[in-house]
Amino acid sequence: MSSNTDIDNLIELMAKLPGLGPRSARRAVLHLIRKRALLLTPLADAMQQVAATARECLNCGNVGTSDICEICNSEDRATGELCVVEDVADLWAMERAGVFKGRYHVLGGTLSALDGVGPEELRIPRLRDRIEAEGITEVILALSATVDGQTTAHYIADELQGRVRLTSLAQGVPIGGELDYLDDGTITAALRARKEM
Amino acid sequence: MSSNTDIDNLIELMAKLPGLGPRSARRAVLHLIRKRALLLTPLADAMQQVAATARECLNCGNVGTSDICEICNSEDRATGELCVVEDVADLWAMERAGVFKGRYHVLGGTLSALDGVGPEELRIPRLRDRIEAEGITEVILALSATVDGQTTAHYIADELQGRVRLTSLAQGVPIGGELDYLDDGTITAALRARKEM
Repeated sequence: MSSNTDIDNLIELMAKLPGLGPRSARRAVLHLIRKRALLLTPLADAMQQVAATARECLNCGNVGTSDICEICNSEDRATGELCVVEDVADLWAMERAGVFKGRYHVLGGTLSALDGVGPEELRIPRLRDRIEAEGITEVILALSATVDGQTTAHYIADELQGRVRLTSLAQGVPIGGELDYLDDGTITAALRARKEM
Repeated sequence: MSSNTDIDNLIELMAKLPGLGPRSARRAVLHLIRKRALLLTPLADAMQQVAATARECLNCGNVGTSDICEICNSEDRATGELCVVEDVADLWAMERAGVFKGRYHVLGGTLSALDGVGPEELRIPRLRDRIEAEGITEVILALSATVDGQTTAHYIADELQGRVRLTSLAQGVPIGGELDYLDDGTITAALRARKEM
């Protein structure tokens, strides 16, 4: 493509990133070459740094730079509340909102009979252990409102029934959302969960 | 965001790539961490390699690993034809088509009075020199069919008038294109340039 194997190799690797295809990978690589000092070298260094230091928290599945992540290590976050999320991106989204002060448990996906994903693949046994070990009193199931997400939520709820308080995120109209653009399911859920003003 | 400065730094740099925003950069970085051995480390190495070796061809503006690129160095490509393109991505697109056997001249943009881009910024003086030095007989103007692209093409045509044969890419219906989806300008151009069958 570029009559240069180093550059072609970089384009090929970039095209494997989610959200990039061959065309956008070529554009990104040309941009990187143009901004070598400002972007390409710092990006290569940052990747090497993360490759060397990033690891999964053995306790909750978050990514960080130590075997036990900062959140699991922080005594301030031992509130007895445990928020169960599908993946690290969801944990980051919760942290950006900045409203939850407890700890997390990252499942690493959802149960899926089709894809052969069972409870053992999902860090669910570890969840059971943590409830005893960390004196958890409430488990908040913050899973996607998809079929697989809700199947997983129900499975976990069945497993933990009677041992802790189990809650899930409220469903309804998103802040700033216009009714006209919402799907029927969301409107139905929002109406059923309506509140006194 | 991730309560980790190394990872946040990588996300911030990734978000500067064209086609990626903060959200897709986060997704890409999580994907990279998950595929550390398969993708993150090779990508970091490939970037370092390109950062160390990539340079602009002093003759034509192509990117390669030497001061004079492979195309300019190849005697086979001294056909007397010179294809003028806006940027390296356009050169690569021409090379993928594999039909042009001559050399290229990368302008590095288009003339733009608004953005203060004049001929000196665009490697146009170098183009004049090359016509003498390399015995160019035909200059093919492969510039975008935009206002700036066509202004640039006319400027270059004026400059070189009488010294070489000047041509431009044909305009018409793209291969596989459906009339229904084409803009009026393309249909008009295709009709005016209609050919006997």
